[in-house]
Amino acid sequence: MTTVEELRLRIRELENELIKSKQKQSDAEHHLRPKIDKMSAEVVDSNPYSRLMALKRMGIVQDYERIRSYSVAVVGVGGVGSVTAEMLTRCGIGKLLLFDYDKVELANMNRLFFQPHQAGLSKVQAAEHTLRNINPDVAFETHNYNITTMDNFTHFMERISHGGLEGKPVDLILSCVDNFEARMAINTACNELGQTWMESGVSENAVSGHIQLIIPGETACFACAPPLVVAANIDEKTLKKDGVCAASLPTTMGVVAGLLVQNVLKYLLGFGTVSYYLGYNAMQDFFPSMAMKANPQCDNAHCRRQQEEYKKKEAEQPKQEVVEEEEEVVHEDNEWGIELVSEVSEAELQDASGPVPDLPEGINVAYTIPKKDGVSGDTVEETEQSLEELMAQMKNM
Amino acid sequence: MTTVEELRLRIRELENELIKSKQKQSDAEHHLRPKIDKMSAEVVDSNPYSRLMALKRMGIVQDYERIRSYSVAVVGVGGVGSVTAEMLTRCGIGKLLLFDYDKVELANMNRLFFQPHQAGLSKVQAAEHTLRNINPDVAFETHNYNITTMDNFTHFMERISHGGLEGKPVDLILSCVDNFEARMAINTACNELGQTWMESGVSENAVSGHIQLIIPGETACFACAPPLVVAANIDEKTLKKDGVCAASLPTTMGVVAGLLVQNVLKYLLGFGTVSYYLGYNAMQDFFPSMAMKANPQCDNAHCRRQQEEYKKKEAEQPKQEVVEEEEEVVHEDNEWGIELVSEVSEAELQDASGPVPDLPEGINVAYTIPKKDGVSGDTVEETEQSLEELMAQMKNM
Repeated sequence: MTTVEELRLRIRELENELIKSKQKQSDAEHHLRPKIDKMSAEVVDSNPYSRLMALKRMGIVQDYERIRSYSVAVVGVGGVGSVTAEMLTRCGIGKLLLFDYDKVELANMNRLFFQPHQAGLSKVQAAEHTLRNINPDVAFETHNYNITTMDNFTHFMERISHGGLEGKPVDLILSCVDNFEARMAINTACNELGQTWMESGVSENAVSGHIQLIIPGETACFACAPPLVVAANIDEKTLKKDGVCAASLPTTMGVVAGLLVQNVLKYLLGFGTVSYYLGYNAMQDFFPSMAMKANPQCDNAHCRRQQEEYKKKEAEQPKQEVVEEEEEVVHEDNEWGIELVSEVSEAELQDASGPVPDLPEGINVAYTIPKKDGVSGDTVEETEQSLEELMAQMKNM
Repeated sequence: MTTVEELRLRIRELENELIKSKQKQSDAEHHLRPKIDKMSAEVVDSNPYSRLMALKRMGIVQDYERIRSYSVAVVGVGGVGSVTAEMLTRCGIGKLLLFDYDKVELANMNRLFFQPHQAGLSKVQAAEHTLRNINPDVAFETHNYNITTMDNFTHFMERISHGGLEGKPVDLILSCVDNFEARMAINTACNELGQTWMESGVSENAVSGHIQLIIPGETACFACAPPLVVAANIDEKTLKKDGVCAASLPTTMGVVAGLLVQNVLKYLLGFGTVSYYLGYNAMQDFFPSMAMKANPQCDNAHCRRQQEEYKKKEAEQPKQEVVEEEEEVVHEDNEWGIELVSEVSEAELQDASGPVPDLPEGINVAYTIPKKDGVSGDTVEETEQSLEELMAQMKNM
């Protein structure tokens, strides 16, 4: 009934249709813009860097192109880490190294970045795919593992030492993890290598967060002092219930990622004031900031060694005055009826029984130790001993 | 040479391949998760709302599900508006109305949300496609037009009056536009309708921004007082050069969007303190906040009418004490070497020659009027007149 000619025609039709279908698929999946060799300041719609290069004309950044010479490692590609990686990608960072062992789940969809069709993929794989599409000029290296196991930690150390551009160390490590162990692993690695890093965190009740700059030997490391968080005026008992899953909000995580990457840009490109610690209390829109020196009694030996080296370096250099004043925000009367609204939360440090530092209002320690009932005292000096106990307890959490 | 049987076989192969190819395409393009009838608090990986519903268990929000009953209009779907829309979508807002007349360009790729393959599409169309994929439970209505033209303004008024869920007015309008005219159009519409709205803005040098809550009759509207911005300690002359394209950063815009949507969530769901005005100075990580009362001499007649109605309502209700204290952040010495870092920028209000309000340090007026050389005085009271002149001048900018 059908002639050979008709069959051949049908085959040609089908072949054409198949080519078109595959082309369409390829367009959608791989619609990469061409790579750009040199960042241009030209003000045309087709230039993805025009609004960033404008920072030079505005007098904010002296040499924006320098961003291409930097590599940053992001550990933890969740609610904060993924947005952090996206911001750095859009800013045209030279290289990003991503570390995470988790998979994308629908339960992550209340935060920015990942999309429902990525559920089931590893976070680093899904992130790399999206980020490469956004900016093919950035180099990516991803590791789908938990940095806290012995083997992975060794590999992690190797990559942050040699995974930067041209085999150099990375310029900065960003901790965007959600647990104490991973933070301590990063802290240990950075103390050993003398690697500057920034830490970030969001509270389990989703309404506070913070960022912190850690320069080994110079500022307090994660083992120097109890990790600090912003008090959110929330009943601790409600928060610490066993088996309760943490709450999260795209707003809080977006703000923390934004403040973190802003600090990274200021640090790498040399503009504005880099924050040592900046907290965010969403309930009251309160943003405490401060700086914390390294603790000479830190129980991390590498931290103590870095402190010695920092002291030597400081002694060799001519002394510079450090400005540490704080101006008050003044409450003024005026004919326009402008009024300042209370923005400072109550400090809740009363429960802490360990050697808790005096902190600015609104900042709290992340962990407190229970009252020592019946624990026998050592011969070691009281204050030092309880600090070490505190750190040991925290490590076991 | 080829038998009919062989040709038939080839056709079957091609048909199968084509089906597979189209299926793959469809999966990638329309991998929508099924709609969810009722928000569940169940802690499983497949529940996109588990981390939001956890806000109830954490004691932050009493009735999170209520978010589904609200509709929000976002005017301007650029660097701030697109992220704002994405955050609200991921939070599960009931309905979003998006207004923008712009197209996606590669020059937008230094901000979050849009991707290079969307270049050339209208912003509202591209945004709706992405947002529907992220959360099919949200209802969307998009308008690809400029709200400041007469016809469009009438249509805009109609949609914010009847475009909410079940034909009700929208619950909130968010201004995420980048120009004075559009802000004034929203202000005019909201004053006439008594519609609460929030305004947002980012400076042309990309390093400061703000959000502001405007409740007609209660707080200052956009015509009551010169729009306020956070001073960024930047040379104004560098900034105001003609023909210079504005700089922008994904960080600043992400932070402003995060603070804006956080304020929306607090306002709609009733938790924390809703901010009237919150500024962000990225150079110093300084966040001034304040509140501003409506101006009885506002030249917007609808604003004055709303003020009268507000006064009547207030008089009818039993009086409540308003807390307007501000606690100081205290600088404390301590054994841990914690130091507060200066976070307040210098006020730069000296250049302003008009009747500029006394503002907290770090906040500035967005527009100042040149010194009145040779302008003849009117018989109208001096202060009122110059205010009106200021507003008239601003409208002409």
